[in-house]
Amino acid sequence: MRALVLTGQLTLETDRPSPVCAPGEVLVRVTHAGICSTDIELTKGYMDFHGILGHEFVGAIAPGQDDALHNSGFAPGDRVVAEINCVTPGSPSRDYFARAQDPQRTTIGIDRHDGVFADHASVPVANLHHVPASVRDTEAVFVEPLAAACQILEQVHIRTTDRVAVIGDGKLGLLCAQVLATTNCPLTVFGKHDAKLDILRQRGIATMLSDQWDGRRDFDIVVECTGAPVGFDQARRMLRPRGTLVLKSTFEGLTPANLTSLVVDEINLIGSRCGPFVSALRLLEAKQVDVSSLISAQYSLDHGLAAFQHARQKGMLKVLLVM
Amino acid sequence: MRALVLTGQLTLETDRPSPVCAPGEVLVRVTHAGICSTDIELTKGYMDFHGILGHEFVGAIAPGQDDALHNSGFAPGDRVVAEINCVTPGSPSRDYFARAQDPQRTTIGIDRHDGVFADHASVPVANLHHVPASVRDTEAVFVEPLAAACQILEQVHIRTTDRVAVIGDGKLGLLCAQVLATTNCPLTVFGKHDAKLDILRQRGIATMLSDQWDGRRDFDIVVECTGAPVGFDQARRMLRPRGTLVLKSTFEGLTPANLTSLVVDEINLIGSRCGPFVSALRLLEAKQVDVSSLISAQYSLDHGLAAFQHARQKGMLKVLLVM
Repeated sequence: MRALVLTGQLTLETDRPSPVCAPGEVLVRVTHAGICSTDIELTKGYMDFHGILGHEFVGAIAPGQDDALHNSGFAPGDRVVAEINCVTPGSPSRDYFARAQDPQRTTIGIDRHDGVFADHASVPVANLHHVPASVRDTEAVFVEPLAAACQILEQVHIRTTDRVAVIGDGKLGLLCAQVLATTNCPLTVFGKHDAKLDILRQRGIATMLSDQWDGRRDFDIVVECTGAPVGFDQARRMLRPRGTLVLKSTFEGLTPANLTSLVVDEINLIGSRCGPFVSALRLLEAKQVDVSSLISAQYSLDHGLAAFQHARQKGMLKVLLVM
Repeated sequence: MRALVLTGQLTLETDRPSPVCAPGEVLVRVTHAGICSTDIELTKGYMDFHGILGHEFVGAIAPGQDDALHNSGFAPGDRVVAEINCVTPGSPSRDYFARAQDPQRTTIGIDRHDGVFADHASVPVANLHHVPASVRDTEAVFVEPLAAACQILEQVHIRTTDRVAVIGDGKLGLLCAQVLATTNCPLTVFGKHDAKLDILRQRGIATMLSDQWDGRRDFDIVVECTGAPVGFDQARRMLRPRGTLVLKSTFEGLTPANLTSLVVDEINLIGSRCGPFVSALRLLEAKQVDVSSLISAQYSLDHGLAAFQHARQKGMLKVLLVM
């Protein structure tokens, strides 16, 4: 099969063997996949990952596999997405919290588990979710990052009276902003690109260019989606004492951070990563979030390396791979 | 009056004028005060503080002051301790949360408000608490740091099934450990000094030398009290995914921190500073916490500079000033 494989550098293999399913896993024929900033970080050495890249996808369960699918509620041909954290083989669990706590967990396309930038991928049955018929493939491919945005609401109680800021107008920032807007809180999104912020303004969300911040440190909650080390300090400075800082960015390396300021101002910092697929699927089904405007380009997997070149360009939003 | 004054360097003044009370403040005759690690950090330039040092104290309300004490529930001669965060002059509030949120707040002996290493100090009436008769002065002087330890229970719901670690066997670590032990959780305190850890062992609290940690990353909650930049990473490594890191240390400068690991493992980091005096006073009154064993030495204010020299020595616990 075709696959985008990271072994120090990224290459397109055309005769990679189909994955061998581990116990509890099934083979899925990938139809669409999305390139995430994390994928680009991985190509720079983040997590020291080797294998098939990719964790955002939608696909269909491959034929056969009766034993693996027995009593699972899934059947060959079903259109599915899959959560990316996998428990220790032999102890599958549908409970996200159990998965998240497992220190041995692997992560599809990120940590010791082959990913989805390929014709086929092997994923745990326990991780699968059905895609509703009304949600198109080019929408369903956003379920993983949209779920990560939904995770904020799982971790932080956002009141309609909380002053909330999102910093960063990249893919994740635009998704987080749309999810936060569903809470009806007073929300402002800070970014560097007027064209990207315009996507939000068209949905009635208040935006501001980062350099227009008035310097008032009075946000109750700041969600950091800049994807860069500088975001921590920027978010920190916008918060009131006892505010909540939701950290979303992942990148390689250490950040010189003023940890003492977190103590002095009693900041609650919440590392926020993956989230509930069911919530993301529900938002897409109800058309409460628009992901189509986030697609910058679509490439055939045959041109996967060109797709990566495109995704790496500054200011790009989502680049999709079509299998 | 006598006062330990920080103006670039620390000096003992003997003819400093008594403080002039701001609106809402009263004069207190200090009887005992404690030297805190923060005081030592301040002498190194932390917070760029200039003025009379000191924030841990017990004293008696000075005579007169009828107008300022009117309807306050306090009278001249009352034995008191005082919370250290002061709201904007003119808007006193007994509500800690309101005080904590005020971006203009000053802090006694730390930030734009003269401190208590002196014969007299001026403090907001709204910050005062009565000291119960059964609590000695040499115990009451610990109320401020003990309240800071109590704050952990305000910020984190500690279950009796949570595996909790305290790292650091300094003054704050020993206080935090004793407060956490009241929750009946499985608690282990990690430190570098067998003699200090022995104070806890004598109270039935499990301890371990830091270099004897087995490397298992399975603590639900780690309370970082090392007072050093290295504590962040050390605490981080002991936590399970989705664990809670309570950060207590304050020091000057930036720490190179792996912020991405907070996101990947979805850590909840809680900056924890000052806490409820009422809880600390109740623990002391009920004799649930032993602070006497934490006193390394007592000095007259006349020998305040020698007291600081003593407190700066490695491995010292609490050095008290007696006025």
